[in-house]
Amino acid sequence: MDATLEETLVSYEELADLEQEFDDVETEIIRQQYALTKPLYAKRAELVSKIPNFWRLVLEQAPMDIDEYIQPSDSAVLMSSLKSLSVRRLELDADEKKGDPRSVAIRFEFDENEHFEDAVLEKTFWWRYSKDGFAGLVSEPVEIRWKKGKDLTDGLLGLVKAVYDEQAAKPKQAAKDKKSNKVELTAKQKALKEKMENTGMGGVSFFAWFGYIGEYVTAEESKAALAEEREERRKRKAGEEVAKKKDEDEEMEDDEDDEDDDDDDLEIFPTGDQLAMAFADDLWPAALKYFIQAQEEDLSEIDQDMDDWEDDEDDEDDEEEGAGRPQKKRA
Amino acid sequence: MDATLEETLVSYEELADLEQEFDDVETEIIRQQYALTKPLYAKRAELVSKIPNFWRLVLEQAPMDIDEYIQPSDSAVLMSSLKSLSVRRLELDADEKKGDPRSVAIRFEFDENEHFEDAVLEKTFWWRYSKDGFAGLVSEPVEIRWKKGKDLTDGLLGLVKAVYDEQAAKPKQAAKDKKSNKVELTAKQKALKEKMENTGMGGVSFFAWFGYIGEYVTAEESKAALAEEREERRKRKAGEEVAKKKDEDEEMEDDEDDEDDDDDDLEIFPTGDQLAMAFADDLWPAALKYFIQAQEEDLSEIDQDMDDWEDDEDDEDDEEEGAGRPQKKRA
Repeated sequence: MDATLEETLVSYEELADLEQEFDDVETEIIRQQYALTKPLYAKRAELVSKIPNFWRLVLEQAPMDIDEYIQPSDSAVLMSSLKSLSVRRLELDADEKKGDPRSVAIRFEFDENEHFEDAVLEKTFWWRYSKDGFAGLVSEPVEIRWKKGKDLTDGLLGLVKAVYDEQAAKPKQAAKDKKSNKVELTAKQKALKEKMENTGMGGVSFFAWFGYIGEYVTAEESKAALAEEREERRKRKAGEEVAKKKDEDEEMEDDEDDEDDDDDDLEIFPTGDQLAMAFADDLWPAALKYFIQAQEEDLSEIDQDMDDWEDDEDDEDDEEEGAGRPQKKRA
Repeated sequence: MDATLEETLVSYEELADLEQEFDDVETEIIRQQYALTKPLYAKRAELVSKIPNFWRLVLEQAPMDIDEYIQPSDSAVLMSSLKSLSVRRLELDADEKKGDPRSVAIRFEFDENEHFEDAVLEKTFWWRYSKDGFAGLVSEPVEIRWKKGKDLTDGLLGLVKAVYDEQAAKPKQAAKDKKSNKVELTAKQKALKEKMENTGMGGVSFFAWFGYIGEYVTAEESKAALAEEREERRKRKAGEEVAKKKDEDEEMEDDEDDEDDDDDDLEIFPTGDQLAMAFADDLWPAALKYFIQAQEEDLSEIDQDMDDWEDDEDDEDDEEEGAGRPQKKRA
């Protein structure tokens, strides 16, 4: 069944603008929720600090959209040395009123382990807008100080960092490179590309996530792009003429997932933004629920059977259960 | 790795009470969100009324946790005769302050079709608490006036309704029957059980969802159970002694999915509450996004290839994309 907008009396802009309005409300809601739950998270932090392995047990119960990225070798490190995990909305902490509630910093603390020197790994994701219509989470590669021969990403993460620094040195150019594949890859980019081609993306380590970039958009560019977009919206609302930068098709493509962007051929963790959201919107708020789940699994044979049965019968539902619906089943 | 609460200084009640507090905030947030988005939904309804097949196209893009329940024969009916779909928070419409924001009514409007007489099918889910610790969405079977030989549930839905009316006639007894399998099944229950055993649950029609019950809990029982639970919480908070109705293990089991309840052997759609939430928390708020997705799929070969690639490479993420994250990618 096919019904493109051309056949209708509604323009793509009308729909996109309304979607934006929904989006703005959604963002305000996250802002309020963060303020309302702050004391509860503090209380939780205090409680769980008394529970050995709290975060390891939570991570063991992680929903599919997190679990699928944790390879056995990653799991070995996490289960043996993860000390704590935390998520903060950094822009709200900086400016409760003006900060974007969707920007998050995800922090892992580790005990001494055989793979890397770092006691803390923190990955920061900023919600950014770009003039080409992109809006989403962008980040910078986080280096991990691997112990000799223990790099779980087999050098991928290091290469990404090297390429990023190279590109960041000339952001404007980098931005252009993205959209047109005309330009030659640099030596570093070539090396990364080859490395990626020789690594099955399926088998890539969870720790490669720390190399996620998304798009090269600075805070300034983002601010300008957002202002421009808001202004166009205002004009459309006021019925004024808005000069189209490009045709709708492109605009719509830009709305799509990172996976669709040209530059993904150099993105070692294309779904890194989605994984960040799974941590921030699901594992973090529902951690108590996952922990209690872990307890239940120990409790009785019957429970165990049930869980097994569920795993067979309706995996999807189990995941959905976990997926950001903390309001469910809490008596 | 095993770490039960016994080893720690934290009691199960402390965690459960805190989880409840998170839950209360979550519920308030839904209440605020409903108020804030009401005008936007009105605007959306007006816009989409001008778009032919809007809801059919949205449903075509439905995330896995809805799509998996729609059999080809269901899809044929929906795609040919679904006129509109809507979700309302009925308790908020009745009482914005006191109503439970988690109760939802999901309404489908149909054109004339070959399977049933009904122009409207509406399924209502109430958020209820029971003394045994259950909290979740309960519902009543909705009858469908099937045309001769066109019952997509092959009689299942009718049997469920018959059993429900029988049980509802003696709610107290029914409630007891639930928890103890001592009592004999009635003739109708036997018939239903047989019918279910002869129907692979996998192949059950989407329309069997209209038979979802969950638990037999009246509004009065729910009110009483909630009041009792709140009082116990208050006491625990005040450090007073609380008489345990049962040991923690049971309590924890009660926290689990419907799938774990004794009475599921007579529930024709055990995950009916989750499907309701998928409609209310995902398809409904993100409908514009799904519609635009549908447009994009028509747009260009490139897009099409991309989508295919995604389907192969990271299904999970595609679903997560859809799963209640309307705040994502909206520039």
